[in-house]
Amino acid sequence: MTTTDAAAEVVEVGPRDGYQGIKPFIPTEMKIDLLRRLVSSGLKRVEIGSFVSAAALPQLADTTEILAACDDIPGIIPQVLVPNEKYGRLALNAGSRFLAFVLSVSEAHNRNNVRRSPRESAEEYGRLLAAMPDDVDMRLNIATAFDCPFEGRVAEAETIALLDCLVPLRANIELCLCDTTGRASPDHVEHLFAACMQRFPQVKRWALHAHDTYGLGLANVHSAWRQGVRAFDASYAGLGGCPFAPGATGNVATEDVAWMFRRMGIDTGIDLETLIPVACDGAAIPGGLPGGRVRQALAAAAANAPCL
Amino acid sequence: MTTTDAAAEVVEVGPRDGYQGIKPFIPTEMKIDLLRRLVSSGLKRVEIGSFVSAAALPQLADTTEILAACDDIPGIIPQVLVPNEKYGRLALNAGSRFLAFVLSVSEAHNRNNVRRSPRESAEEYGRLLAAMPDDVDMRLNIATAFDCPFEGRVAEAETIALLDCLVPLRANIELCLCDTTGRASPDHVEHLFAACMQRFPQVKRWALHAHDTYGLGLANVHSAWRQGVRAFDASYAGLGGCPFAPGATGNVATEDVAWMFRRMGIDTGIDLETLIPVACDGAAIPGGLPGGRVRQALAAAAANAPCL
Repeated sequence: MTTTDAAAEVVEVGPRDGYQGIKPFIPTEMKIDLLRRLVSSGLKRVEIGSFVSAAALPQLADTTEILAACDDIPGIIPQVLVPNEKYGRLALNAGSRFLAFVLSVSEAHNRNNVRRSPRESAEEYGRLLAAMPDDVDMRLNIATAFDCPFEGRVAEAETIALLDCLVPLRANIELCLCDTTGRASPDHVEHLFAACMQRFPQVKRWALHAHDTYGLGLANVHSAWRQGVRAFDASYAGLGGCPFAPGATGNVATEDVAWMFRRMGIDTGIDLETLIPVACDGAAIPGGLPGGRVRQALAAAAANAPCL
Repeated sequence: MTTTDAAAEVVEVGPRDGYQGIKPFIPTEMKIDLLRRLVSSGLKRVEIGSFVSAAALPQLADTTEILAACDDIPGIIPQVLVPNEKYGRLALNAGSRFLAFVLSVSEAHNRNNVRRSPRESAEEYGRLLAAMPDDVDMRLNIATAFDCPFEGRVAEAETIALLDCLVPLRANIELCLCDTTGRASPDHVEHLFAACMQRFPQVKRWALHAHDTYGLGLANVHSAWRQGVRAFDASYAGLGGCPFAPGATGNVATEDVAWMFRRMGIDTGIDLETLIPVACDGAAIPGGLPGGRVRQALAAAAANAPCL
């Protein structure tokens, strides 16, 4: 979190969110090589995997090895997702220093994901926090903050009521509102962030996890940026989506977000010319669901046009 | 132009901008059938074709027939593109009551399109206006208002200098700023519209022609909306792009724009459930270059999920 007010931090979530829905196992060496290349393009924070039952998510069973390999990737800030206190402790023991936890505002979505109510998940989050040393960074992901695949649009009051339980537990975190379905509109993003930022000024940092399923990924990133959000999840090659949200393929693509900010003159630290070939290789991963526009547009432009 | 301040007008340009780059001739009867279905989805103004040399654009050689067929399509407001005074008179004689003219801010792009300087095209526009009765509506398209495929980013001062020549000729028009390359960013859209609307308050109506080549189509539409723009060009199925701008495929898709406004609670008069099947048929036109997200996302959602 070294970005200034005039810079945007892009958090690369492809290696976790993008890979987890891919059936054929991506060889660990290939994951590490892609990770190294992503970081060499200027990305720093990467969600590299998840400490979770290997039976539940076999694609992420090598997270411990990936985490260890990060010691040899200069500049990387590896973030890992954990589903509960137990796996949080495993992640800590394996050397994690940036953990992410997720729960949903929507009862139906949370039960579908972890067979618990949102309030029960909030209690689990409290136990996880209690087990974490002070020097461990924390990201809290609020899924279905805007909209739920089962229940439709989520009322702002519901999202805020859940945050009323969560924020007092620890304010020194990064709090990420997630558009799980991709159906948040830019005015909704603006309004919910405005309400949350006003109600919870003690939160250290706000983030947006945007999906591009309906083409609104960049519109929503821009809207959150205008509101003062400075951290944005994105997946290289637009890989992934939520396997529990039917039809919700399509994380916003890292290269699309980096492109927009570059056109706006806002620093992300990302070198697009280095990133695009990695995104092209990511899009070619067998079983992957790639998305985004910039990858193909820049390839077309390179073939035809004199300027980017 | 019957929209209120709280409503957005989507101008369907697929039948001209989307079709003109398609090599295999689309049978006239098929064009008329698609046009009828587009209007039945709630679209009113449609750029149905271009009065132009049939040798230059053989796909649009049947514009006179299409225009005549509009007499039997209740509610349609047919708009036609004309390249100069001569073809403007032909369009008037054929019964056109809504004409569009285009010129580029960028010298290189204008010369590439019509082998004239922008100032020479401005004079042609003056001759066209002089030939038009008062009851004929006029749309003026400013190509490369933001960015040029040959010259890169266009300075705001350049766009405004050209408008200084054009606006005094007739203010009672719709003035459309066109993102020819798709490389305008939302802050650029906001800033240029703000500057133009302040300098030319006499202009009756402003419009944006957005491209989605780099995924910024909806972000730019939203940005213009925030600025007070109420008319937006879009192409069903995302068909088309500028054949003279290398790599610049991808008009923003009508269904994507309609979707965003619906999620924002803003009326466009478009019924998406009627439009999507037409967009699917448009995407299947042989030789077409479809784009957009909502068409496929809604199809996936209909197959899997309980709610839109």
